[in-house]
Amino acid sequence: LIAAARPGGTRRVDTIAKLEATHADVWVATASGAGAAHLIPLSYAWDGERVVLALPADSPTIRNLRSSAQVRLGFGPTRDVVMVDGSVEQILEVGSAAAADIAERYACQADWDPRESAGAYLYVLVRPQRIQAWRESNELAGRLLMRDGEWVV
Amino acid sequence: LIAAARPGGTRRVDTIAKLEATHADVWVATASGAGAAHLIPLSYAWDGERVVLALPADSPTIRNLRSSAQVRLGFGPTRDVVMVDGSVEQILEVGSAAAADIAERYACQADWDPRESAGAYLYVLVRPQRIQAWRESNELAGRLLMRDGEWVV
Repeated sequence: LIAAARPGGTRRVDTIAKLEATHADVWVATASGAGAAHLIPLSYAWDGERVVLALPADSPTIRNLRSSAQVRLGFGPTRDVVMVDGSVEQILEVGSAAAADIAERYACQADWDPRESAGAYLYVLVRPQRIQAWRESNELAGRLLMRDGEWVV
Repeated sequence: LIAAARPGGTRRVDTIAKLEATHADVWVATASGAGAAHLIPLSYAWDGERVVLALPADSPTIRNLRSSAQVRLGFGPTRDVVMVDGSVEQILEVGSAAAADIAERYACQADWDPRESAGAYLYVLVRPQRIQAWRESNELAGRLLMRDGEWVV
């Protein structure tokens, strides 16, 4: 027995709630210039328009994002998915003055603060271009919520 | 408060249990020849040596796997991760005689049977080359369980 399919408006509300969730993680998929897929779960924050990630400056994900500027984010669990195709809008050094507001928001929403970590970290600001949301197979129809950066529900 | 880091042997046992879990999903990351990352949650089975996926023949993941034959599989949840880098060993048509044993196993472990679906589906057999497993940050050390297809714990 599965629940009735949610209408688009409900899915949009549920999607925002997931983006605003505290102490949660997202599966981050990127590709290298050579066409190798990378995947890693990461903490995240949401600044109202962009997903904020924090990564070691020398990580494979940063290398991939500098090469392609495209990322696919899978918010789970797998039976309550929000899938975001996004573009990298900005990369900021953790500890820089330009990142001060982002750093506060990230520290509040995520469950750690990269400003307290050893080593060089970067914030990556990802702007959603396409968002899909579904729970079970009865929600595959109507799963497109945003296209070309604009909500369609 | 987080649990003590598991030793390698325990992580290996827990990893096998996750691969054998029924009605579970895995995050499947692939890359296109043009370097675009794709990510999708899928049901799976484990035949003792290979992860079995089932996909529509015309899906982006199949296109990517035919192009690169490499895949990264993230078994969750995000605080109990098994990460598998694997190579595509075989692709079999659902409904073919060659896939009969795989089909039975898949139907038992996954929560659906692609033989009952409309449309052309394929089984993809992924052989793990590299496996990492960790729960919290205290398990990042010692997370490598398999390298070049061989268990190292």
